[in-house]
Amino acid sequence: PSSPQASSEGLYFCDGLRKVDYVLVFHHRRHGSLRCTGTASVSQDQLSIVSNGNFPEEAASVGEVFMELGMARGSEPMEAADHEMHLIRQEFEANLLEAGLEVERDRETKTHGPSFTRIHAPWPVLCREAEFLKIKVPTKQSYELREESGFGSSMSSVWRKLNQPFEPKVPHQDHGSTKFLSHCFSRDKLHMYNITSKDTFFDNATRGRIVYEILRRTVCVRTCQTIGISTLIAKGVYDAAFPLHDGDFKVTGHLEERNDRQVLFEEWARYSAFYKYQPIDLVRKYFGEKIGLYFAWLGVYTQLLIPASIVGIIVFGYGVATVDTNIPSLEMCDERLNFTMCPLCDGACDYWHLSTACGTARASHLFDNPATVFFAIFMSLWAVLFLEHWKRRQISLSFSWDLTGIEEDEAKPSRNSDEHPRPKYETILLEKRQRKQGYSTCHFVSSMSPYSFQTVAEKLTWKDRLPGYFMNISSILFMFGLTFSAVFGVIIYRITISALMAMSPDPETKSNVRVTVTATAVIINLVVILILDEIYGTVALWLTELAEIPKTETNFEERLILKAFLLKFMNAYAPIFYVAFFKGRFAGRPGSYVYVFNDYRMEECAPGGCLIELCVQLSIIMLGKQLIQNNIFEIGIPKLKKLIRTLKEKEPTQKEKDEERPPRQWNLDYALVPFEGLTPEYMEMIIQFGFVSLFVASFPLAPLFALLNNVIEIRLDARKFVTELRRPVAARAKDIGIWYNILSGMGKLSVIINAFVIAFTSDFIPRLVYQYMYSQTGTMHGFIDHTLSFFNVSNFKPGTAPHSDKFPQLFVFLRYKDYREPPWSSDAYQFSKQYWSVLSARLAFVILFQNLVMFLSLMVAWVIPDVPKTIVEQLKREKKLLVDLFLQEEKEKFQL
Amino acid sequence: PSSPQASSEGLYFCDGLRKVDYVLVFHHRRHGSLRCTGTASVSQDQLSIVSNGNFPEEAASVGEVFMELGMARGSEPMEAADHEMHLIRQEFEANLLEAGLEVERDRETKTHGPSFTRIHAPWPVLCREAEFLKIKVPTKQSYELREESGFGSSMSSVWRKLNQPFEPKVPHQDHGSTKFLSHCFSRDKLHMYNITSKDTFFDNATRGRIVYEILRRTVCVRTCQTIGISTLIAKGVYDAAFPLHDGDFKVTGHLEERNDRQVLFEEWARYSAFYKYQPIDLVRKYFGEKIGLYFAWLGVYTQLLIPASIVGIIVFGYGVATVDTNIPSLEMCDERLNFTMCPLCDGACDYWHLSTACGTARASHLFDNPATVFFAIFMSLWAVLFLEHWKRRQISLSFSWDLTGIEEDEAKPSRNSDEHPRPKYETILLEKRQRKQGYSTCHFVSSMSPYSFQTVAEKLTWKDRLPGYFMNISSILFMFGLTFSAVFGVIIYRITISALMAMSPDPETKSNVRVTVTATAVIINLVVILILDEIYGTVALWLTELAEIPKTETNFEERLILKAFLLKFMNAYAPIFYVAFFKGRFAGRPGSYVYVFNDYRMEECAPGGCLIELCVQLSIIMLGKQLIQNNIFEIGIPKLKKLIRTLKEKEPTQKEKDEERPPRQWNLDYALVPFEGLTPEYMEMIIQFGFVSLFVASFPLAPLFALLNNVIEIRLDARKFVTELRRPVAARAKDIGIWYNILSGMGKLSVIINAFVIAFTSDFIPRLVYQYMYSQTGTMHGFIDHTLSFFNVSNFKPGTAPHSDKFPQLFVFLRYKDYREPPWSSDAYQFSKQYWSVLSARLAFVILFQNLVMFLSLMVAWVIPDVPKTIVEQLKREKKLLVDLFLQEEKEKFQL
Repeated sequence: PSSPQASSEGLYFCDGLRKVDYVLVFHHRRHGSLRCTGTASVSQDQLSIVSNGNFPEEAASVGEVFMELGMARGSEPMEAADHEMHLIRQEFEANLLEAGLEVERDRETKTHGPSFTRIHAPWPVLCREAEFLKIKVPTKQSYELREESGFGSSMSSVWRKLNQPFEPKVPHQDHGSTKFLSHCFSRDKLHMYNITSKDTFFDNATRGRIVYEILRRTVCVRTCQTIGISTLIAKGVYDAAFPLHDGDFKVTGHLEERNDRQVLFEEWARYSAFYKYQPIDLVRKYFGEKIGLYFAWLGVYTQLLIPASIVGIIVFGYGVATVDTNIPSLEMCDERLNFTMCPLCDGACDYWHLSTACGTARASHLFDNPATVFFAIFMSLWAVLFLEHWKRRQISLSFSWDLTGIEEDEAKPSRNSDEHPRPKYETILLEKRQRKQGYSTCHFVSSMSPYSFQTVAEKLTWKDRLPGYFMNISSILFMFGLTFSAVFGVIIYRITISALMAMSPDPETKSNVRVTVTATAVIINLVVILILDEIYGTVALWLTELAEIPKTETNFEERLILKAFLLKFMNAYAPIFYVAFFKGRFAGRPGSYVYVFNDYRMEECAPGGCLIELCVQLSIIMLGKQLIQNNIFEIGIPKLKKLIRTLKEKEPTQKEKDEERPPRQWNLDYALVPFEGLTPEYMEMIIQFGFVSLFVASFPLAPLFALLNNVIEIRLDARKFVTELRRPVAARAKDIGIWYNILSGMGKLSVIINAFVIAFTSDFIPRLVYQYMYSQTGTMHGFIDHTLSFFNVSNFKPGTAPHSDKFPQLFVFLRYKDYREPPWSSDAYQFSKQYWSVLSARLAFVILFQNLVMFLSLMVAWVIPDVPKTIVEQLKREKKLLVDLFLQEEKEKFQL
Repeated sequence: PSSPQASSEGLYFCDGLRKVDYVLVFHHRRHGSLRCTGTASVSQDQLSIVSNGNFPEEAASVGEVFMELGMARGSEPMEAADHEMHLIRQEFEANLLEAGLEVERDRETKTHGPSFTRIHAPWPVLCREAEFLKIKVPTKQSYELREESGFGSSMSSVWRKLNQPFEPKVPHQDHGSTKFLSHCFSRDKLHMYNITSKDTFFDNATRGRIVYEILRRTVCVRTCQTIGISTLIAKGVYDAAFPLHDGDFKVTGHLEERNDRQVLFEEWARYSAFYKYQPIDLVRKYFGEKIGLYFAWLGVYTQLLIPASIVGIIVFGYGVATVDTNIPSLEMCDERLNFTMCPLCDGACDYWHLSTACGTARASHLFDNPATVFFAIFMSLWAVLFLEHWKRRQISLSFSWDLTGIEEDEAKPSRNSDEHPRPKYETILLEKRQRKQGYSTCHFVSSMSPYSFQTVAEKLTWKDRLPGYFMNISSILFMFGLTFSAVFGVIIYRITISALMAMSPDPETKSNVRVTVTATAVIINLVVILILDEIYGTVALWLTELAEIPKTETNFEERLILKAFLLKFMNAYAPIFYVAFFKGRFAGRPGSYVYVFNDYRMEECAPGGCLIELCVQLSIIMLGKQLIQNNIFEIGIPKLKKLIRTLKEKEPTQKEKDEERPPRQWNLDYALVPFEGLTPEYMEMIIQFGFVSLFVASFPLAPLFALLNNVIEIRLDARKFVTELRRPVAARAKDIGIWYNILSGMGKLSVIINAFVIAFTSDFIPRLVYQYMYSQTGTMHGFIDHTLSFFNVSNFKPGTAPHSDKFPQLFVFLRYKDYREPPWSSDAYQFSKQYWSVLSARLAFVILFQNLVMFLSLMVAWVIPDVPKTIVEQLKREKKLLVDLFLQEEKEKFQL
């Protein structure tokens, strides 16, 4: 493995034998660039190779503590802070050596630019930590996976053949039908494992994780009481710490010699591979389980969007096919029926014929037809199925990734860091202690064991946190207010603009009122959402960091996610909620309209029903958000940032150096963007999941658009991880954590929201009620007449009757869409019996739909076992094999 | 530990040193009682002590395989089947010896009565198995539990003092504020554990479990291909297998010398201890985790019933207090209002004044008042709180019982037996194989490893199972039909009897119609429920055993529970459901009543509303079921059974023997009833939980009665376990399994049912609607008038008008309770606008209530962390200590 090329690429120590598992970087600042030209010509042998094994052969020997650190530092005056940093680094690295790691550093002669400390974990350290971390490794014991026989087998081979073009071309690790039994690594049982080479037994991701684990728990007690690399980075002692990528991602040599990064780049992170399955096992091997799970989840979600899209298209197709035979929309378009309607605004607007709204009636049938109800039920079940399917996939993955049987606590990487508070929390705590006790932090020398000093230190009590909580709650309330006032502002915009346009004398303007106003309002909504989305993301981070001060990383992440989700969810859905449930419900009735600001009538829905408006709102916001956020924010802004960074850093001298000598892997990786967690990726998808599930009853094409977006999204994210980010530490994870809860919560919410959309926003229920309770013929004929109430022209409030008189004043009664008693009834304009019966039917539908779907969901979740049958069987077999092995060993012991 | 008394009690082998950990029993049958007098005088030294260690000192030596088994068997002719059994026993016990166990048997000279094989597990076997089973044991490493300081500490000491009289007097194992770190037992780390005596390091329950584990997996390959003791018992090779109790439960000696069974009997299994906490840790130590969890669960449930009862009493008290100021019931009792009502039956019944129904109106107010709505919400949240509280308690227990960190699979005892199909399944499988291959079972000698032969044997396919499934489904449907027809039968009974009684000329009979009919009908219902309950229990068992043939014990248990639950639930609640939601809704209206069998009018609810009937139904069924099932079935029948058994077995010779020599512990234990699982205990409580939660809106006193019942139930069950049952094998369990799901399902169901009860059965919504929509004054005055519709006397169908004419025929209009248009309206007798508005309000209430309570429940479940904070902290500390220990060991190794 030690080709000279690999060494020059910078994957190994300069001896070309010891792998670089981790890199620590710090940056020389402030001290001018006096000696830059001197360092520019530094050649390979000028690096001070400081390791505790002098010769490659003895690289594994542990215990020789290196004390030459910081040789060159005396040569120039340092500032006090810098000097302290230097001392901390010195102690930290000495402690690393003591922990058995091997370290190689550039000579500290450079006074400008990054300085790298490279870390290598020798075999004994790897063994010790692997045992400690209970890492499962394959044993020599293998067993045959049971092959299906007969019909099943031929089916599966046909399936395999059909799938062939979709499979990524990845070198297989498993040998088809045999699987190696895995067992937790233990130094006592080395004979059990399949160790071909001590250098490659643990893969690079595992090595990085092991080193990170040591870095995380290594303490600096002498110079400054602190623990772990993350605190040191927060304090500015180091600038960055990351494991190295496996080399360049561009394939240069022969196909067979590709490294994992190249394989990933070729087979996964390209748009041209969009139709292929993801090489999830390789992703996991390279990036660790946590990121592997994200992509697996994204893959499952995208895959399951395919059937949803197909059904959505069929449902939409049904709408298109039946639009010409649908009686209500035919009746609306029928000019012979000649319903004269109340004017749409006071004074300026004229009476109008219902048949002029024929277009929207036809359009609304596309989305508002019985198939939509079926589709809403289907999508609710689809959401449940998706979650169940994911659970199974997750368990399959954790089985094939050897995570089964690992304790809950150990599998969660976050739990591991529980022991250790966040740097920010520590700082606040120290400040508090100082305030109390009056002496400085770094002199607080304790004789306690490094592992117990946190437990003794006092906690932040609720008194310390109270101001933070207040700030938190008030900020969130303020931002809720912001969202609502944005929505309200757009409503005001719509009301005023339509009133103004209606008053305009230009007939062209008048006829386009609705289209213009709706379109511009939705676009304003979209822009507001996009802007607030970015603001809220920042504010949530800032609030969690500064006001809440959670103790641990887990806490921090969970609170941040919840807060950001709440804000972004409100932001994305508030205008849609308004259109779905509130628009047009507070408009009053002819003769007693509701006015805002004394002058403007509250807006009503289009004559075709509110559903079509909801559909327009939903589709524009969803598509706009996806297109703009994907293209501009995810592709554009990182590129821009990189450009700025390179422009800034590219000073002439550096440039020359780059040209002189090919940059090492650590230089290349340092230039990449640091990995900052999967939260934004998940968040984007969860909000999208909301569009697909929450209001799907009004827009059956949502799954299709989501599918199209995700096919691109997968490759976009993959590309980012492979080419643009520093390699993240491989983190173990058994599940996707809080996101699952959020998903399942949204699934539950979607049931009730869809029930209300169908019952109240669509015309489905009134139609049913008409057909089965009021229709004389049992058909829909006469439905439109039934939904329109009568209004006596003489009941207009003074000044609100239309001015113009294109219509002859023959008629006394106008019509409007509502169920109210006619003017000649004893309680004129009160809600009629029809109103109450339709309301009852709507409410009964909500109850029925909600409970039916909930029951079906429970049934589906109950019928589908969480653990796939094959996995159960394999687990049983593995257990049996382990029992056999155990009993055999017992016997052997007994015979000795 | 080897006092001569203990030995004579039969807790030890006859050497007085080796504990009897398990007893296998087989029964000589059929061979007359020829030599009974000979065995009657058998003395202690005549027992053939057959063990693999000859002297007590060498008792621990393993490996000397005993080959003298069955010495005396040649002395008399045996039947072929008996001989085969004998051979199987011989092989099985030889295999036990090979596994390292030590065995002592009575000489097989007896030809009648039980023969005992006693098993002792020596230290090396215990160690091996404890390591294998990953049993956690305390290490020497202990740590201080953090004491609360200041106010908290004084509060908790006050609390402790207050609790003093409720604490059972149990010798404490833990020493107050220190806790020993536990770790999985490992033979490599013996120095870590606190081993004072190898005889007592593992307690009796653990020893029993270990031996059971060996018995379970020991195979008989030579004589008959089978595995495990349960199959052998099923085949009749052995009669019983059980671990021994810790001695007699009656305290004889000094208080300090009580054994665990005596302590449990004194402090737990007595009615006089009803006010005390349960000594759960001791219960767990003695009976194992599974039974400990049952009693802990029962305790938590009972404890939480206390607040529910108190609130229930207050709610009931509110009803009592406001009955004299409640306007609707005052109006109903007001004779001045003089509503003349439609007759309650055709012809025979007369018109009547509403004020005569004053009594039921007042009674119904006790249960139908606004406080009930509050109570329904409260109880729904109570159910959630109960489940959350139990989750926390469960986790606390599994922490203090050292079950944390044990794999899910290993903690479930049922999972362990997964490897091994049930005897019944095996038999069916063998029959199938025979049918196919044509050779007999026992000659099917395989060379396979004993642990793999099940996997190779074919499974029962769906073809084999199809008839079973059919039978299953049809039986269940049949039994559903049975339940429904029983309910329907009672309805018919009620209709006919009231019609007949109404026709009776005796005025005394007439006036008591309703009371008599209701009371007798409910009692019939109760009797039917009790009878069907027993039948269904048996049928469910029989169906699962014979028709479904589940493969494993887990499967068997789950399916049995589900089936039994479904049937018993239906059975217990069908009549209540009928009264709550169907009674009186299909009665029609005056002038067009609904008739069954052409003659009888469908029944209506009492004038006071259906809720009072629901309340009567619920309370009688609940109380009757509890009293009868508890007293007769749980106390009476076992006593009766025991009486019959002892009468049967007490033949004169046996009696003499008993008088001669005090019976050994194994004799005593064999005479007890075998333990048959916790399913009936849980089932009873779950059905009770249904009474407490499902219809609680109609009967706020249900929690109180449940509480009273449970206080007795705990002690009753405890007594049964301590004195009447053979000791069960201590089974590990982390949770209560499927019961939790059933409980949470019932909690969810209760929300929707209570919503419907309040909305549709009670008069809550109509009153609200009247007060806020129709009342002129904003008060309830006039409510009764509003709920009564008008009926024109001339609209009576011919022959249905009352014959008698006590009432003057002055009036034309009668009243009846419904919202219908008056006779003078254009659509007379159709549902009125009021009907639809009340219906809308009812439905809206259901939606609101259901979603509000569901949301609150989710919030409660989310706010209360599943793992208590103290446990989280302790777990963290333990983990840290383990890390420290590990690192220290590493260092020591390194220094060596």
